Amino acid sequence: MNLKTLPVLFATTFLSGICLAQTTQPAVVEDFKPSLLNQPGQEYPQVNSQGYARFRVKAPGADSVRVSLGLGGRGGTRLTQAADSMWFGTTEGPMDEGFHYYHLTVAGGIFNDPGALNFYGSIRWESGIEIPAHDQDFYALKEVPHGNVQQVLFPSKSTNTSRRAFVYTPPDYYNDKSKHYPVLYLQHGWGEDETAWPNQGHANLIMDNLIAEGKIKPFIIVMTYGMTNEVKWGHMKDFKIEAFQTVLTDELIPYVDTHFRTIAKESNRAMAGLSMGGMETHSITLAKQGVFSQYALLSGGIYTPEELKDKAKPSLIFLSCGSRESPDRLTQAAAKLKEAGYPVVVYVSENTAHEFQTWRRSLYQLAPLLFKN
Amino acid sequence: MNLKTLPVLFATTFLSGICLAQTTQPAVVEDFKPSLLNQPGQEYPQVNSQGYARFRVKAPGADSVRVSLGLGGRGGTRLTQAADSMWFGTTEGPMDEGFHYYHLTVAGGIFNDPGALNFYGSIRWESGIEIPAHDQDFYALKEVPHGNVQQVLFPSKSTNTSRRAFVYTPPDYYNDKSKHYPVLYLQHGWGEDETAWPNQGHANLIMDNLIAEGKIKPFIIVMTYGMTNEVKWGHMKDFKIEAFQTVLTDELIPYVDTHFRTIAKESNRAMAGLSMGGMETHSITLAKQGVFSQYALLSGGIYTPEELKDKAKPSLIFLSCGSRESPDRLTQAAAKLKEAGYPVVVYVSENTAHEFQTWRRSLYQLAPLLFKN
Repeated sequence: MNLKTLPVLFATTFLSGICLAQTTQPAVVEDFKPSLLNQPGQEYPQVNSQGYARFRVKAPGADSVRVSLGLGGRGGTRLTQAADSMWFGTTEGPMDEGFHYYHLTVAGGIFNDPGALNFYGSIRWESGIEIPAHDQDFYALKEVPHGNVQQVLFPSKSTNTSRRAFVYTPPDYYNDKSKHYPVLYLQHGWGEDETAWPNQGHANLIMDNLIAEGKIKPFIIVMTYGMTNEVKWGHMKDFKIEAFQTVLTDELIPYVDTHFRTIAKESNRAMAGLSMGGMETHSITLAKQGVFSQYALLSGGIYTPEELKDKAKPSLIFLSCGSRESPDRLTQAAAKLKEAGYPVVVYVSENTAHEFQTWRRSLYQLAPLLFKN
Repeated sequence: MNLKTLPVLFATTFLSGICLAQTTQPAVVEDFKPSLLNQPGQEYPQVNSQGYARFRVKAPGADSVRVSLGLGGRGGTRLTQAADSMWFGTTEGPMDEGFHYYHLTVAGGIFNDPGALNFYGSIRWESGIEIPAHDQDFYALKEVPHGNVQQVLFPSKSTNTSRRAFVYTPPDYYNDKSKHYPVLYLQHGWGEDETAWPNQGHANLIMDNLIAEGKIKPFIIVMTYGMTNEVKWGHMKDFKIEAFQTVLTDELIPYVDTHFRTIAKESNRAMAGLSMGGMETHSITLAKQGVFSQYALLSGGIYTPEELKDKAKPSLIFLSCGSRESPDRLTQAAAKLKEAGYPVVVYVSENTAHEFQTWRRSLYQLAPLLFKN
């Protein structure tokens, strides 16, 4: 199970919503279809070709029903009760392409939309909706050979539990049984867990498609839970990396290297993370030298030449974010890193915010750059 | 994703609730603790040592809140609004041990309990609650070597899709890379999907524990979605097995045999299913000779000597159900099968109904009987 950065998600969604509301909206096109993330047989929520979302909720005896998606400052989208007593409404403007977490406020309590599938984010299972994206082909389920996503329960002495990780193995892992693979350790964001990348992130489908098109050298991806030191959103300064660092580098990596056919070397090990997972990547790659050679922060901060000097030089630094975040900060950081001789790549996802469409695209951009040496 | 037999579940839960309500209830012991299946940090729902469940739901502007667990005839458990405006209530009697699906009716609409994790059942993701069982040790997460549960996307020409299966591989699968394993194909019930056995069924933990104790020869378990021909509950006569039979025997089994180290022989292949999955097991084992040698129906009907004559003799027939179902029917069927010379084992789970505790126990009883030859 697994979730992520809901507060930021909503913050940015709200901002873009407010912007849209201040301009003139185009007429709403009546071509609404059930969201791709609906539960089986459910007609609502729906999405139209412009990116508007429409909701229909049964709660005849509620005094109000709101949807958290839409105009943040004004409390999302308020539904109104129709003559048939169903609550009904459409977002005031089109939404960004890609995946959005949301929930309902029914009669003053927070519930999920019974029409939608659930995704772990903001330390709870939230409803999810998918606004079809112009570039959705790269994470579509296609008729290509598929890798597996394995649930692994690995022993963790430091936390005295069996901990869960998901391991993506590429399609040819089972055909060529002598082959060994590089490994990317890929972290979720705050409030999410290890289900985020395989579920809403489609990490496995992104890899399957890239491999089928011959665009990347196949590698393994390992995803585990990074919130070993629980902190509330807004209290990130209280976050201590040591507990998770121990789990990752002293327990999980040795387990993966003994249970999977990996190339167990620094040069063939990368770490990436989104949002809080980027913060973790930043801390751990700097603190644990000799483990990873390639670092990627997805909406998760920057590196400075000062932090990196006196350390082994990474063979890749990848920095990304959505265009609705702070791309200038990344560009400026990249210029300084380049000047200091570091191999840095910046990617900005157009017209997306601190949400999963940014990170799906970031993984798609990152994967071909990894393990080139 | 995956679910099951909710209608029957509730029917039987309600029956036992009604029985309890007609007798004098013991005083409710105030040792309630959060259910083991709560979302992170959630205090409610709670369960006490007697098996009572207690709920607390925020929906200040609702006209009513009900929980589907409890006394069926009277609409489950009605919550009452406390002075702090929270809806609060306790089941009228203790509930059966084990896992129960449930949902809330808030202001007349069906929602999940925001405190509980979700499990796929009755063609929707439902809330789940766990009543600690006296024998819960056999499916507990312990410090033993753990097998993996792999998500596999296999090509299916007959349905023109990539279909999902979960494959349990035992702990030593990765240590001894020359070893080949027997395979159990294990089906969920109506309204559930392939997530049921690994999630609420704990099939992987049951296997890990049995293997750690040396009680079974390790084998692989394959779980996939069996509702290729959608039917509404109560219309089981309309169910056509052919579509799923093709997926299972012509597509999935060959895929598993080429992608995993199986012993690809009838003698090392078993099929089992619960409820509707038992119906599927019954149909497919009879229709497709030469594929499976061991058959198990968990709350899923019986075999008769008439059906089996002129067919290859299975090396095991396993029939099980809960004591609150119809164990006499199984005992009578077993007597006839035995008389006709068939190797039959009957297992009745004490004090459980058409619910997952019956099937967890059934798998625990079945596993040591499989692949003995």
